[in-house]
Amino acid sequence: MHPQDIIAKKRDGAELSSEEIELFIRGVCDGSWADYHISALLMAIFIRGLSGQESLELTRAMLYSGEVLDFSGVALPKADKHSTGGVGDKTSIIIAPLAAACGLAVPMISGRGLGHTGGTLDKLESIPGYKVNLTAGEMRSTLDECGFAMAGQTNEIAPADKKLYALRDATATVPNIPLIVASIMSKKLAEGLDVLVLDVKTGSGAFMPRLEDARGLASQLVGLGTKFGVKTEAVISDMSRPLGKYVGNALEVFECLEILRGEVSKATEPTSQLSVELAARMLLLAGIETTIESSRRLAMDKLLSGEAFTAFQRNVELQGGDPSVCKRPEILFASGLRDVAIVASENGFIGSIDTLAVGKALVTLGGGRVKADEKIDHAVGFSFGTTVGDEVRKGDTLAFARCRSESQFDSIREAANRFFTIVPEKTEPPDLIIPSDRNLE
Amino acid sequence: MHPQDIIAKKRDGAELSSEEIELFIRGVCDGSWADYHISALLMAIFIRGLSGQESLELTRAMLYSGEVLDFSGVALPKADKHSTGGVGDKTSIIIAPLAAACGLAVPMISGRGLGHTGGTLDKLESIPGYKVNLTAGEMRSTLDECGFAMAGQTNEIAPADKKLYALRDATATVPNIPLIVASIMSKKLAEGLDVLVLDVKTGSGAFMPRLEDARGLASQLVGLGTKFGVKTEAVISDMSRPLGKYVGNALEVFECLEILRGEVSKATEPTSQLSVELAARMLLLAGIETTIESSRRLAMDKLLSGEAFTAFQRNVELQGGDPSVCKRPEILFASGLRDVAIVASENGFIGSIDTLAVGKALVTLGGGRVKADEKIDHAVGFSFGTTVGDEVRKGDTLAFARCRSESQFDSIREAANRFFTIVPEKTEPPDLIIPSDRNLE
Repeated sequence: MHPQDIIAKKRDGAELSSEEIELFIRGVCDGSWADYHISALLMAIFIRGLSGQESLELTRAMLYSGEVLDFSGVALPKADKHSTGGVGDKTSIIIAPLAAACGLAVPMISGRGLGHTGGTLDKLESIPGYKVNLTAGEMRSTLDECGFAMAGQTNEIAPADKKLYALRDATATVPNIPLIVASIMSKKLAEGLDVLVLDVKTGSGAFMPRLEDARGLASQLVGLGTKFGVKTEAVISDMSRPLGKYVGNALEVFECLEILRGEVSKATEPTSQLSVELAARMLLLAGIETTIESSRRLAMDKLLSGEAFTAFQRNVELQGGDPSVCKRPEILFASGLRDVAIVASENGFIGSIDTLAVGKALVTLGGGRVKADEKIDHAVGFSFGTTVGDEVRKGDTLAFARCRSESQFDSIREAANRFFTIVPEKTEPPDLIIPSDRNLE
Repeated sequence: MHPQDIIAKKRDGAELSSEEIELFIRGVCDGSWADYHISALLMAIFIRGLSGQESLELTRAMLYSGEVLDFSGVALPKADKHSTGGVGDKTSIIIAPLAAACGLAVPMISGRGLGHTGGTLDKLESIPGYKVNLTAGEMRSTLDECGFAMAGQTNEIAPADKKLYALRDATATVPNIPLIVASIMSKKLAEGLDVLVLDVKTGSGAFMPRLEDARGLASQLVGLGTKFGVKTEAVISDMSRPLGKYVGNALEVFECLEILRGEVSKATEPTSQLSVELAARMLLLAGIETTIESSRRLAMDKLLSGEAFTAFQRNVELQGGDPSVCKRPEILFASGLRDVAIVASENGFIGSIDTLAVGKALVTLGGGRVKADEKIDHAVGFSFGTTVGDEVRKGDTLAFARCRSESQFDSIREAANRFFTIVPEKTEPPDLIIPSDRNLE
């Protein structure tokens, strides 16, 4: 069967068989499908869609295009969290040690930032010496020692996804639910999990801003995880404003350390709240606790007791990071940085924050990337002192941009002046965690 | 503007601006669009379609991606015919000298066979020495000397089409009306014509078998030609059975020589009739005659008088072919060929001929190609002694397959045994020229 025959079938809206999907993914991996074949099929899939069965088969083919980690020797329930990506979304760095402190094993495989959304690996690499390229063996020993490991996708895990993602990025076929689902799940299922909690973002800084798309994505992710025998749940959370206080790699790790050390402020509270909530869902699904309330209590206890922090300290040592970062988080920051104030242009209330613009401005400062493999500057970013609903007066500092120089700020000045929309009447900030359809019923 | 932005726009069904279409075609030519960008956009165009305006702009951009021949110094009306391709469709080789003999200048640029449909260049190359790679200067001098020239597309003519066609062939995006229209017209408009007659095929051996698709294609081709200031007309003709007696490159030239020499038989009559009709349309559009009846008479006269044959003889000399082919057409054939009979399996009437299967069997024998640039065997082919509606008895020879050996026939034996469907009652053969919508009104 030629690639053309499979492409023509999907082009005309027909359902592909599991054999055809397997031939496609095999062709992607062994190079017998050229980039132009793959792109044509991706566009046909984007426009014509995939059925539930096709989506399952695509995920399965992508998953088994590579290695599935075998943690069957690990006695603890294996659990992970995955977020669809946002701005200032740093909860992984809190959740992994927190869940480990509560009795789960967390073999977390994360990605890098691309476009306006950040990536956990980039954030972790703000810690001097921290190593994210772990072999399966190193991952296993780290997991055994401190309850969690945080690593990048190796070439052995879902290699088809790497190739497909690069082509999707180049051909405008990224924002498509079945393709997103297959991409996420082929990697997460390779972790050999018992439990998976998905944090699906909605709002202006999310990958799919509309709530209905987020709900659709959440439902497909959960359905697919369940079919593969993983206890899966999705939480839809707000990304209409940056999560927490800081945006930018080193700054976000700084915020996580503050929270792990028990120093929670009004600005960092949403990060802490979402982290506890997602960890609690993991505990409940894994059967560590029997109710969501007791799960939340356990997670909160382990955060406040410092046990999650201890697990994190141990992990930093194991993964080669400078352990002193946990005692003196300031070492995350280079010297000579400039904090430039972003001020209110009028009196009123903060009505909204253009979260997508914040993410893009971080890329402009060098703290994110447009193309995979671009190097980034971990030190730059933003610090948000105010949020939606806050009353402000003209001239008040709303946020700081941490730049390499005053002149670097010029590159984002115009964008930064439009981050905040000031309105005459107080607006309630949106719920951090959006009630699910089920809760609404 | 990135390729992704243009791809995303068409992906979502929006209309592309002329600037966006120009950027696309420029990117195709200068390599700044990768094959995967191009393929993704082609698939989006295939599924979402193109408006009339987009189709016009695409054709324009493809046309001006290369050189437009300048025959402004030629005093005679410049006219050409283009067929959408079929099996046994050899009318170009008759029409070009016939139209020239009637007072038109015919700067004909033709293609090669691909898949089940043949190509004029391959047929002409059956003539020993005949050269189809003419420069613009050689084309002009040949045109001046004998009234017509038959050449291949140079690299300078519509280079975007070459690249796009190869990718369409590989990605199942060929059978799409706006893309076909732009491909045909960007090349034909580069001939600098006054008049263009299109022969749009319908039926089992045509590229788009359904009559409604043929009508849609015809209407778009005519509309577009007219917009570019070329007097354009389309004829829809039957391709539910092979045209004329022979299928195969040398055999088809042999049939043309028979007709040009005035030897018309029942089996070759459809070839002759369609050639005269298409030439007559060219004469009428060019204003050589004022009615279709007088145009037909003129064309028939010039065919029977041998003036078209004289023009052809002169052309063969000018384009480097062996002139003796016109006197002794047998020299077209290599020695050692075997004519294997295909016989009737039962008594009855021929109900239909699987024309697509005939075209594919020619490819199997080596007389056609699956991929551009494959070499072909000009000598092999088929000779049809019977056609739809003929009464036959079990064991009668219906056709011959001209093969390199008896054993080569084995490769097509099964297919050949299914070429003819024999039915108990006489079926009228379909009209050779399908009445246009206009005639039906």
